[in-house]
Amino acid sequence: MRNPLYHWTHLELKTAFGVEELLHPKTAEKIYDTCTKKLRTPEFSARGLMKKYNVEVVCTTDDPADSLEHHIALKNEGFEIKVLPTWRPDKAMAVEKPVEYRAYLEKLSEVSGISILKFSDLMEALRNRHDFFASVGCKLSDHGIEVFYAEPYTQSEIENIFDKVYGGDELSKGEILKFKSAMLYEGAVMDWEKSWTQQFHYGAIRNNNTRLFNQLGADTGFDSIGDFNVAKAMSRFFDQLDKDNKLAKTIIYNLNPKDNDMVATMIGNFQDGSVAGKIQFGSGWWFLDQKTGMEAQMNSLSNLGLLSRFVGMLTDSRSFLSYPRHEYFRRILCNLLGNDIENGLLPASEMKFIGEMVENISYNNAKNFFNF
Amino acid sequence: MRNPLYHWTHLELKTAFGVEELLHPKTAEKIYDTCTKKLRTPEFSARGLMKKYNVEVVCTTDDPADSLEHHIALKNEGFEIKVLPTWRPDKAMAVEKPVEYRAYLEKLSEVSGISILKFSDLMEALRNRHDFFASVGCKLSDHGIEVFYAEPYTQSEIENIFDKVYGGDELSKGEILKFKSAMLYEGAVMDWEKSWTQQFHYGAIRNNNTRLFNQLGADTGFDSIGDFNVAKAMSRFFDQLDKDNKLAKTIIYNLNPKDNDMVATMIGNFQDGSVAGKIQFGSGWWFLDQKTGMEAQMNSLSNLGLLSRFVGMLTDSRSFLSYPRHEYFRRILCNLLGNDIENGLLPASEMKFIGEMVENISYNNAKNFFNF
Amino acid sequence: MRNPLYHWTHLELKTAFGVEELLHPKTAEKIYDTCTKKLRTPEFSARGLMKKYNVEVVCTTDDPADSLEHHIALKNEGFEIKVLPTWRPDKAMAVEKPVEYRAYLEKLSEVSGISILKFSDLMEALRNRHDFFASVGCKLSDHGIEVFYAEPYTQSEIENIFDKVYGGDELSKGEILKFKSAMLYEGAVMDWEKSWTQQFHYGAIRNNNTRLFNQLGADTGFDSIGDFNVAKAMSRFFDQLDKDNKLAKTIIYNLNPKDNDMVATMIGNFQDGSVAGKIQFGSGWWFLDQKTGMEAQMNSLSNLGLLSRFVGMLTDSRSFLSYPRHEYFRRILCNLLGNDIENGLLPASEMKFIGEMVENISYNNAKNFFNF
Repeated sequence: MRNPLYHWTHLELKTAFGVEELLHPKTAEKIYDTCTKKLRTPEFSARGLMKKYNVEVVCTTDDPADSLEHHIALKNEGFEIKVLPTWRPDKAMAVEKPVEYRAYLEKLSEVSGISILKFSDLMEALRNRHDFFASVGCKLSDHGIEVFYAEPYTQSEIENIFDKVYGGDELSKGEILKFKSAMLYEGAVMDWEKSWTQQFHYGAIRNNNTRLFNQLGADTGFDSIGDFNVAKAMSRFFDQLDKDNKLAKTIIYNLNPKDNDMVATMIGNFQDGSVAGKIQFGSGWWFLDQKTGMEAQMNSLSNLGLLSRFVGMLTDSRSFLSYPRHEYFRRILCNLLGNDIENGLLPASEMKFIGEMVENISYNNAKNFFNF
Repeated sequence: MRNPLYHWTHLELKTAFGVEELLHPKTAEKIYDTCTKKLRTPEFSARGLMKKYNVEVVCTTDDPADSLEHHIALKNEGFEIKVLPTWRPDKAMAVEKPVEYRAYLEKLSEVSGISILKFSDLMEALRNRHDFFASVGCKLSDHGIEVFYAEPYTQSEIENIFDKVYGGDELSKGEILKFKSAMLYEGAVMDWEKSWTQQFHYGAIRNNNTRLFNQLGADTGFDSIGDFNVAKAMSRFFDQLDKDNKLAKTIIYNLNPKDNDMVATMIGNFQDGSVAGKIQFGSGWWFLDQKTGMEAQMNSLSNLGLLSRFVGMLTDSRSFLSYPRHEYFRRILCNLLGNDIENGLLPASEMKFIGEMVENISYNNAKNFFNF
Repeated sequence: MRNPLYHWTHLELKTAFGVEELLHPKTAEKIYDTCTKKLRTPEFSARGLMKKYNVEVVCTTDDPADSLEHHIALKNEGFEIKVLPTWRPDKAMAVEKPVEYRAYLEKLSEVSGISILKFSDLMEALRNRHDFFASVGCKLSDHGIEVFYAEPYTQSEIENIFDKVYGGDELSKGEILKFKSAMLYEGAVMDWEKSWTQQFHYGAIRNNNTRLFNQLGADTGFDSIGDFNVAKAMSRFFDQLDKDNKLAKTIIYNLNPKDNDMVATMIGNFQDGSVAGKIQFGSGWWFLDQKTGMEAQMNSLSNLGLLSRFVGMLTDSRSFLSYPRHEYFRRILCNLLGNDIENGLLPASEMKFIGEMVENISYNNAKNFFNF
């Protein structure tokens, strides 16, 4: 109780399974049996659930070296729900481990058909894959980064760093930062060229538990919220792109709520009027994907930006039962606005306008923003 | 909606123009016409608005090199509202750009009549201007700083750094920190000597957008909230002044609300009983000058200090229509206390005492504190 | 008013003295006289108050060099309330000041009977005292640290650093970090060996006011909240212990609420199922020991962990009248849950379950967790 799982679970039980009883020790077995039975019916297949929840578009997360064969198969088959890839080149930046990085480059060479021997080859191979992703319907990139990288570098520095890591040598901390800065910038330019939206999920500390990492592998849950200082590098990164007139539509997701107000003001620096809400403060993400986290994000955005331009909720849940989290978000949004009206902070006479704002944040803004 | 502009605008429309209608697409033109007509009447001149809002004192922000001619003219004219200068020596610290700094020193030489060739000359010129500001009624200084500067330095180091920048050489990061530390300290001593109140507005990242900076110039709005670590330097800065028994009345304004509790406890370290609430936690400022920001500041101050000693609201708005923001602050303060009473957290039987506290925070505390 | 003292004081007046009147200028003298009279009666002795408040166990804070003579005396006497020591080895880590540190080592030599000439002697002496503390009933350690220390080091490095400081030489910043890292780790291992619970109170900036420090001495109140980045070192510290399978039950108390969500997720990295809620996010501490602070801690814990496993409140107040702060905590906990029920966020039909959770957080969890 009080953990978001309590609300999520009951919303899933109710909306997917029609279970209205509360889950607790006495009801657990009965509910388990009811759900198990239903899960065996076609209505509860992955596709069945997606239809049940009126899903229109799903964006998956994919490595540049991924074949996207399943996306292509679904497209060819004419599946009525769009399932689009998202470009997530985290591994192309992971130069901390030369051996694994070299292996990744070889994989990328293979799928792109471009032999990667120097930095310009890597760029060519990535651009080749970026084009391929676009051809399969990709409209978004995503980056899981600890902090923003915006160190000054020269082209020849990056080429030398590439040669070094390609040759199997460990990079210094400064070299890693320069290389990541270059990769982040080059990737952002590609996204801008294709009018994609670039997303940055920053601020996690990953693989905290070495014992369980060794048992279970990376990204298996032993991650937590970091406490980094990021504002200056974030500013430099977007400023460089803006200066070069190559700043794509952008969504910034922070993981530590202490950054909420900073991010909500940072986006204001780079709005340029070309697209409504071009630079977005992303909805409460991962650990913050709960009532308190979502409300804090929406309050910061409201106070320091324009709530009405918000493209709304994203969930990176991997479950086909997690669609009610969007309903949860919409209820929380309505609750915020409803409380404001009850408390005299917004006028009840503007209910129609407020209702349209809710519809926009819940559906229309995203549809227009992403060009789905 | 939900942005403070919505409340501010309606408070301005209502209190200045008597417009009670809500602003929205259908009413906009009519309201615009009504206001335009009124703005052409003498009642809506700058002086008219100040009288309408019962303004007693206005403090402007002025560079040490400023002539203060308009302040003097107003004073000579006998204008019934006090318009006082505030000492804002940011440019005297801006040694990052040697050419601009040298130009500033020359301007300062000219107005002070003191030829500035070495650091002691700069101090003499600043002191000369500080005296002049005092003669025109100045009672406050203000400092826009990224972080607090409290590096150890020797007098001869500062003299050499001055010679270097005066000669047109770029300073190292360490030299800049030392020089700013010296300037911040020396300025604080001057303020203490005159029983002024020193204000520190810290934590912004300025000029984030280079493209628009080049188009529009500095401080034109592309600023945002930073995420600096400041506590230790802040502590060292005030400690040095306290040790030397030269700590003036002080107000600290933070820009990132993550610092609220830190600042609310920091002020407690340096209260010395000589003046009630000598070291103040400043009211929600700039981006935080809204309901959530003001409430968070007052809650931190209440929990960790003494709300009753609070000197209340400052707004750095440049608009003659922005006086209702003070009403907004007072309403928010009353709302906080009223909710506490309704929730049983404060006793309704103490309404008289609580009412006096509101009056003090809204008016009396500031009047007494600043010696207006 | 609005400061926690207002509530604390009235709870103390009411529960200890039966005073139901509000404290204000007109009632102050009468209340003072009433309390003074009662304080002279045996019922209001230290032991009387502890009985009145149904205290079962008190844990004091003690230096490893402390004789614990009063604990032993109470135990021998058969006092019905357990008064147990807590191991607080802060001075054994305080290598910043070689002279004071040497003096401390000599004191430790004396009480342990072990001549301390090298690092291994220090470890032997501390282990000797740790055993002694255990024999007197100690079940907890406590550490007042600015940040977590988790620098890599070798055994011979630590031995050399010890020799250096033992010889009276100042250590470099890097040496201090390595030494503290070693001490923190070795202490944690000792706690794990005895199945104690280790507590970390981190994040204060101490002795901010040099003038008053010189007048009044250390830890006399001129301390405040710091703004450190700690997540990575905290992660490395617990990870090393977990890897070595030597991670004791742990409670982490942060002093800056900006860290709440980070800590609430950090504990999740190291739960291992051996003990319910093995790694705890400590209750609002020191400056945060008030309604807002406690609620923020419980909200973060609820959203990101399991509130039901929480071992509840600790107060480091030194006053025998401060026991009502536990009642204050319990009321705040109940108020949180009651509001959730009223707002439809928790089901009223689960009142019994929720009531048991309150009892567990208020009493049972701690009793089981600490093996009192």
